[in-house]
Amino acid sequence: MWGRHVKLMKFFSLIAVTVSALLLPDLGMAQGADVTPGNDEIGYILTTFMFIVTGVLVFWMAAGFAMLEAGLVRSKNVAMQLTKNMALFALAAILYYAVGYNLMYPGDGWSIDGILGAFSTAKLEPVGLAGVETDLTYASVGADFFFQLMFAAATASIVSGALAERIKLWPFLAFVLVLVALIYPIQASWKWGGGFLDGMGFLDFAGSTVVHSVGGWAALTGAIILGPRIGKYNKAGKTVPIPGSNLTLATLGTFILWMGWFGFNGGSQLYMDTAGNVADISRILANTNTAAAGGAIAALVLTQLLYKKPDLTMVLNGALAGLVSITAEPLTPTLGAATLIGAVGGVLVVFAVPLLDRFRIDDVVGAIPVHLFAGIWGTLAVVLTNPDAMLLVQIKSILIVGGFVIVTSGVLWLLLKAIVGLRVDEETEINGLDMSELGMEAYPEFHRG
Amino acid sequence: MWGRHVKLMKFFSLIAVTVSALLLPDLGMAQGADVTPGNDEIGYILTTFMFIVTGVLVFWMAAGFAMLEAGLVRSKNVAMQLTKNMALFALAAILYYAVGYNLMYPGDGWSIDGILGAFSTAKLEPVGLAGVETDLTYASVGADFFFQLMFAAATASIVSGALAERIKLWPFLAFVLVLVALIYPIQASWKWGGGFLDGMGFLDFAGSTVVHSVGGWAALTGAIILGPRIGKYNKAGKTVPIPGSNLTLATLGTFILWMGWFGFNGGSQLYMDTAGNVADISRILANTNTAAAGGAIAALVLTQLLYKKPDLTMVLNGALAGLVSITAEPLTPTLGAATLIGAVGGVLVVFAVPLLDRFRIDDVVGAIPVHLFAGIWGTLAVVLTNPDAMLLVQIKSILIVGGFVIVTSGVLWLLLKAIVGLRVDEETEINGLDMSELGMEAYPEFHRG
Amino acid sequence: MWGRHVKLMKFFSLIAVTVSALLLPDLGMAQGADVTPGNDEIGYILTTFMFIVTGVLVFWMAAGFAMLEAGLVRSKNVAMQLTKNMALFALAAILYYAVGYNLMYPGDGWSIDGILGAFSTAKLEPVGLAGVETDLTYASVGADFFFQLMFAAATASIVSGALAERIKLWPFLAFVLVLVALIYPIQASWKWGGGFLDGMGFLDFAGSTVVHSVGGWAALTGAIILGPRIGKYNKAGKTVPIPGSNLTLATLGTFILWMGWFGFNGGSQLYMDTAGNVADISRILANTNTAAAGGAIAALVLTQLLYKKPDLTMVLNGALAGLVSITAEPLTPTLGAATLIGAVGGVLVVFAVPLLDRFRIDDVVGAIPVHLFAGIWGTLAVVLTNPDAMLLVQIKSILIVGGFVIVTSGVLWLLLKAIVGLRVDEETEINGLDMSELGMEAYPEFHRG
Repeated sequence: MWGRHVKLMKFFSLIAVTVSALLLPDLGMAQGADVTPGNDEIGYILTTFMFIVTGVLVFWMAAGFAMLEAGLVRSKNVAMQLTKNMALFALAAILYYAVGYNLMYPGDGWSIDGILGAFSTAKLEPVGLAGVETDLTYASVGADFFFQLMFAAATASIVSGALAERIKLWPFLAFVLVLVALIYPIQASWKWGGGFLDGMGFLDFAGSTVVHSVGGWAALTGAIILGPRIGKYNKAGKTVPIPGSNLTLATLGTFILWMGWFGFNGGSQLYMDTAGNVADISRILANTNTAAAGGAIAALVLTQLLYKKPDLTMVLNGALAGLVSITAEPLTPTLGAATLIGAVGGVLVVFAVPLLDRFRIDDVVGAIPVHLFAGIWGTLAVVLTNPDAMLLVQIKSILIVGGFVIVTSGVLWLLLKAIVGLRVDEETEINGLDMSELGMEAYPEFHRG
Repeated sequence: MWGRHVKLMKFFSLIAVTVSALLLPDLGMAQGADVTPGNDEIGYILTTFMFIVTGVLVFWMAAGFAMLEAGLVRSKNVAMQLTKNMALFALAAILYYAVGYNLMYPGDGWSIDGILGAFSTAKLEPVGLAGVETDLTYASVGADFFFQLMFAAATASIVSGALAERIKLWPFLAFVLVLVALIYPIQASWKWGGGFLDGMGFLDFAGSTVVHSVGGWAALTGAIILGPRIGKYNKAGKTVPIPGSNLTLATLGTFILWMGWFGFNGGSQLYMDTAGNVADISRILANTNTAAAGGAIAALVLTQLLYKKPDLTMVLNGALAGLVSITAEPLTPTLGAATLIGAVGGVLVVFAVPLLDRFRIDDVVGAIPVHLFAGIWGTLAVVLTNPDAMLLVQIKSILIVGGFVIVTSGVLWLLLKAIVGLRVDEETEINGLDMSELGMEAYPEFHRG
Repeated sequence: MWGRHVKLMKFFSLIAVTVSALLLPDLGMAQGADVTPGNDEIGYILTTFMFIVTGVLVFWMAAGFAMLEAGLVRSKNVAMQLTKNMALFALAAILYYAVGYNLMYPGDGWSIDGILGAFSTAKLEPVGLAGVETDLTYASVGADFFFQLMFAAATASIVSGALAERIKLWPFLAFVLVLVALIYPIQASWKWGGGFLDGMGFLDFAGSTVVHSVGGWAALTGAIILGPRIGKYNKAGKTVPIPGSNLTLATLGTFILWMGWFGFNGGSQLYMDTAGNVADISRILANTNTAAAGGAIAALVLTQLLYKKPDLTMVLNGALAGLVSITAEPLTPTLGAATLIGAVGGVLVVFAVPLLDRFRIDDVVGAIPVHLFAGIWGTLAVVLTNPDAMLLVQIKSILIVGGFVIVTSGVLWLLLKAIVGLRVDEETEINGLDMSELGMEAYPEFHRG
């Protein structure tokens, strides 16, 4: 209500300033001119700063993925897993600038309307916004770019965990390059760039489908084409557990991801210029937190009941699945509903991990259950709390995005396999990628058991 | 001063808007309506966002406790310690929603006036604040809930470290459940919910007593009832040092806690809507930082003098004790006074750790010296810099809170001991809880010495 | 433009308030008086909060340095390296308060005009800004102090890594004391305190020279005077690689530093009170991120080309060198230019590490290539994108700061060497500093290979 008054005040002050410019040579109030933001600038400042803070939190998820994955692979592959994570983030940063950003947010510049965005590099606003007519109704381009870039990188991080311990570095990075430059931004433009899925009424607040399932599908096609690690499934057809080398780091990684998710979901509100928007961000954070808690507790209780012993890695993946589940709609659920949505995600993970093994799909860190299965569940669950969601549209969108990613990533994996090969040779895999591919170890002083 | 003018501007613009509604059909300024926050919304947005940022920082302390404790236990108990930390946080999140929040902040709904709050689940404001008359003088309920939840979880984290390496998982989690749902919020309501301790004039800015000593008392009763670890005190009555397995992680945990404390103390200012409030938050951060530094340096110098060798774990606990010490009053001290208050905390820890051992109270990570002893010191030290503090009231409040927690937690520990047993059997303790209770190890590939 | 209108509105409301004070006894709008910040307070609140958030991020870099260094030393020296990092930060916090801050920012109180600042302890504004005329055009003193303190600590952190595994704890801390109290703030006052380098037109946005090269020069003089570790260069004159004990922690440290750098460079904008300023902070973050990415990718590709195997530690140092390179001017470059500036930093590191070895300068973590060489490059690179930069002034300033730090730190190292000795004895070095100097190990349970 006051918003309108403020605009009127502006109108009257516009008259006043015209009058005063004629009549009053100097009001003696010129000092500190640039410390009082104009009223219409405040919303812009607040929203932009919100993107800066939440963008830094989503950046932090890159470290979370690195620690989670380094903790869940065997020590002989840790240095390689770290190299992949550091390199994929750096590559994503550059590629999203060079291609991804404008492909995802073409504005009026679609190459094919609603389907294929613009091909051009990202451009920031000039220093100090000098010389441009700035639209103050949103946020600075720099902050938006910074925030969105982190989502592209997160998508790539999901893939690296699933394919650990056997994929070669450079083919993996080639895949990341195409994923971040083309596959991710094209399908993301369909929803977040205002493309055809958005037009259909598809709802995906922070990316259960647009980010997590995309990473998950790419991981799934990769895991199938790459095949399981040597020794993961024995001749009797049984699954041999291969425990991670450092569960402390895996736990740290989970806490980092949980923290970063506050930025991931909270920043996706996209505005912090009104009381309603900041209250919504608060709701989102509270719901995101409780969904993670629900997922963790569900996995804890369920593994106790099923296996008579709680399973820490399942608890970690349960928390992450809770986070993925709430990502499609962190705003509308009540706290109780958010807890349950997250808990279902945690349950899914406990059942999905052995299910994948039955199909001999070897996903080293559980990325497919966490990001793909819980991502689908979260996208469907939107209809439970958001009256604007349409179940058929949600399903259709999941299938369209899934189909697109399966085909494009599948072709890409197969191409890379045919041209340069995806997988290290058997000896390298058995000895560990670290010594063979990098010539260094993550923990050179510690004997392995 | 300008605050009043702004209100007057609103008054005049109210007249203006009425007039213009009659006279001017369209001023052509309707675009971007919701990007200019009304002036009375700005304080609400700023305070709410402050809670969001500081709440995320306090969340991060959960990871800090997990790393500190994982680093200070032996490797055979690390996975269990991680499981406890992850599970206790998740449990706290759900229980504080289900019971704790309204018990702690009953508003007008006290069950027993000033003593026992309301029994109901937490409710967030509606999406977009739609359809409610929102009080814009504070912050969104979601942000307040999110921030306060983290304090409840921190209280539980304190307990887990002291009782590590011998307590069973499920009885521990049962204790956490009651601590977070009842014990913590009931006593916290006495001060922060506006209960009888607040009425007495008790001062505890961010919780040296309300949070840290509560965790400390619960840890103390637990450590006494549980008894020391096998081998901690030998037959000659001497203390056998049991070094932590990973001091890098313990140091990382300390840095994380230090960082999180900026949110813990800074956010407890509760408002960021004026220049005075944000300047106070700055004071609090500067003082919090220097108190931690004082505690660390005091422990470093003192261990060098006493033992001829500096002791890293004492330096870490010294920093943490400095942080706990300044928590009851981080605002009024000068930087010099804050440094000294923190330094006394660091000194306390160096003397308290062997003191506990003399009583054969086995506190694995030093949680009781850090959180209880320094918490009491900090609560008393309020009188040194805040003229509103009354020494007798501070002492009385420490005793009331202490008595309440000793009795309730003591009864609870004894009940759990009688009904399900608190302690793992001797063989499990010797072999480590990880293999026996979880069937997994944190570092499966590394030989133990 | 609206900024002026707002000031006019104030003028009119000033008239209005005077009139209304005479005519209207009570407008019934007094409630919630302190939730509507006066318009001139908003800029102050926003800028202060920006310093709080970015200051916490720069604090976090202390943990980053600790993890990076702990990961890159051998396990027998890890506990000592952690002790040094924790102690140096605590010491920096206290010394910067006691001496450094006013020496660096003397305002009108220069001891020698433009050359030597004021000798007095830092004083914060009173609680609630009560009783003082506050200049609302900048930020609270507390927030500024908190932010600037972290830069002083970062300078000291740079030194500790280069000299690891052989320098004694207390002489190192004595050096840190003088560095943080005198050397760093004196030269920093020349630029950031408004001293003679600033007057010359020297440009160094966030401290490629003022912070990073200063740490780098102090590390270089220290490394030369201290000499290399035993066994680093064999009798044949060849360099023997000494791998770090934990690359996961080194990677974590790099991610932490990368994250903290958003605060380091972003906060150095110094204002967040207008749309232009917050848009600039966004630019800075986007550029900082892409420069790190450029450095990492350059090092990855270059080590693959040169050595046929990518080198993870080079990738980490490449990212850090990219960050140092962009620090002197993170605002004016385009995203493309920032990527290239960072990439050159990454290339520099790959060539500088073996170069230092040729001179038998043993820099354990690569601090000198990263902070000194890339710092110089970054300072020169300002001229490429900022038309206000003058190449000769940049060179002159690099030389002046370098000369000052080389002389003062060199004298200090030599004095400490002469009086107390800098280096542990040979036996201690071979056995590791942890057991000899601290009597504890970082990883006591793990056999060393």
